[in-house]
Amino acid sequence: MLLVNRPVGIPQPGDFAVDEAVLEPIHDGQFRVRNLFLSVDPAQRGWANEGSNYAPAVPLGSVMRSLAVGRIIESRHADFPIGGHVYGWLGWQHYAVATPQDILSHFAEPVAPLSCYAGILGINGLTAHLALNGIGRPRVGDTVLVSTAAGAVGSVVGQLARSRGCEVVGLTGDDDKAQLCQTRFGYHRAANYKAGTIDTVLDTAVPEGVDVFFDSVGGEILDATLRRMRTGGRIVQCGTASIATWSPDPIGLRNEREVLTRRLSWGGFVIFDHVVEFPGAIAELAVALRSGALAYDEDIRAGLDRAPGALIDLYAGRNRGKVLISLG
Amino acid sequence: MLLVNRPVGIPQPGDFAVDEAVLEPIHDGQFRVRNLFLSVDPAQRGWANEGSNYAPAVPLGSVMRSLAVGRIIESRHADFPIGGHVYGWLGWQHYAVATPQDILSHFAEPVAPLSCYAGILGINGLTAHLALNGIGRPRVGDTVLVSTAAGAVGSVVGQLARSRGCEVVGLTGDDDKAQLCQTRFGYHRAANYKAGTIDTVLDTAVPEGVDVFFDSVGGEILDATLRRMRTGGRIVQCGTASIATWSPDPIGLRNEREVLTRRLSWGGFVIFDHVVEFPGAIAELAVALRSGALAYDEDIRAGLDRAPGALIDLYAGRNRGKVLISLG
Repeated sequence: MLLVNRPVGIPQPGDFAVDEAVLEPIHDGQFRVRNLFLSVDPAQRGWANEGSNYAPAVPLGSVMRSLAVGRIIESRHADFPIGGHVYGWLGWQHYAVATPQDILSHFAEPVAPLSCYAGILGINGLTAHLALNGIGRPRVGDTVLVSTAAGAVGSVVGQLARSRGCEVVGLTGDDDKAQLCQTRFGYHRAANYKAGTIDTVLDTAVPEGVDVFFDSVGGEILDATLRRMRTGGRIVQCGTASIATWSPDPIGLRNEREVLTRRLSWGGFVIFDHVVEFPGAIAELAVALRSGALAYDEDIRAGLDRAPGALIDLYAGRNRGKVLISLG
Repeated sequence: MLLVNRPVGIPQPGDFAVDEAVLEPIHDGQFRVRNLFLSVDPAQRGWANEGSNYAPAVPLGSVMRSLAVGRIIESRHADFPIGGHVYGWLGWQHYAVATPQDILSHFAEPVAPLSCYAGILGINGLTAHLALNGIGRPRVGDTVLVSTAAGAVGSVVGQLARSRGCEVVGLTGDDDKAQLCQTRFGYHRAANYKAGTIDTVLDTAVPEGVDVFFDSVGGEILDATLRRMRTGGRIVQCGTASIATWSPDPIGLRNEREVLTRRLSWGGFVIFDHVVEFPGAIAELAVALRSGALAYDEDIRAGLDRAPGALIDLYAGRNRGKVLISLG
């Protein structure tokens, strides 16, 4: 699946085209992966757009960048033998030629369904685990507020924060997901942020204020929450999904006074800085997952041609859990 | 010196009035302090204004809140005997009745001139030391940018950062102070931020980007610096002096994307959270001061009636170092 047009904002199906190519021979140090599950992630909008982000834009005419889980079917690298499984930068395609630097995790013997390695045992669950603990530093009794609470990251944050003895509050974009947060993902309370102004929603959802804000949206939800942070609170900035474009620079409420007077600690988290921590974190998450302590939902759609539409659905909130494309 | 009108923005002389009162007897647990040096601080604007800040507003008709250094002249508290010296919430007045909770530091034997205890050994030097190390976490080779670089806090930050092996860059409001930063306060480079647009000034001052931003001003200098932070940079928010009023909420560039993509850590620092750390930090600063390793300038004005004008001069940048009022 090639990126053929440079989208403005959310990529549309017409920005992509399917191409067929003959498999080229692989060279020493490379291995060929048969992709099994392609990941569909909010960050892909940034990769498709022009302009600086924390990764360079995907060149037009190239395979769309994505994470995926696959099986090694051919290898000229001794550490990546045929039959092993890998998770990494394998692209929206059926077959990938990879080198070790493309790989985020490598597992000979999966201890969970393979699809999990592209979600709760991939960057989604790892972001929840490492960002919550590294920047959020939750303490027993803290109120933890999570935006996109029912999403692939948020649904794990809710459960991990509850297991740490926190009071966990979720924000979602519809009533059904708010319900799901409470029945399935460990949230004590959850609200549909579209059910009123953000101020009225937060007045009801977190009347006591917020100790840890796990935020993936930014924008007015962030501004309103900053004004409800408790002294010494922590903000984990994992995304800015509510901002459709950063060109020109959008305007909002000034927030330095909140940082100062509330003694906040506001940190940016990008999971790819933390690859060295992955094996330990995957092991911890896998234990919880196998024990049944972590609920996890997948929204798996079959066929490469459904990838662009799945990305649009993700931005529109028309998904139930981690969105993956399965390749039969 | 009573606060008699509620100022909008910077307090003016007409907002204050001098009153004379008979000294009331003190009670058990209290002691009377003869004030010697009154502190004039940017934070006093916030204390005089209506509306929430990180301290309640000074009630109209009350003595203006301020820090001061004085000598105990009468005591009914065994831990605060006559002849000892204290630094704390003693107000813009000649005599204060105090209890231990008003006191930030207590020193029987001063190891530096008494005025220093209201400045470089008071909250100004302590803010520089504890905020730079606690939130800024400077490392050898880091570029450290300091707003209000020649001020009572900034002048200490520059010298401490240089002693830690950092490349230290100062921003000030005039060319003379920029010169002073380099000749006296340890800065490798310094710029007058009024000498061009903030972007052109920063392009020249910190072409390599910024690892640690020690900020006391906020506003457009903060916005422009956020866009020049290096990956993993730290922002120490110690003040927001450039914002004249927070009612209504001022608007500015949205900054969550910078926090995220640059992996910043942005923390608010209020010195009064750190009183337990004062004795150790005062001892460290005093050693450096006595050895001559820390340059320190005072702008001492004689007489209580000069306090309101001194506060206006401080906001206008018409001061050279720490502003104090001496009471003869």
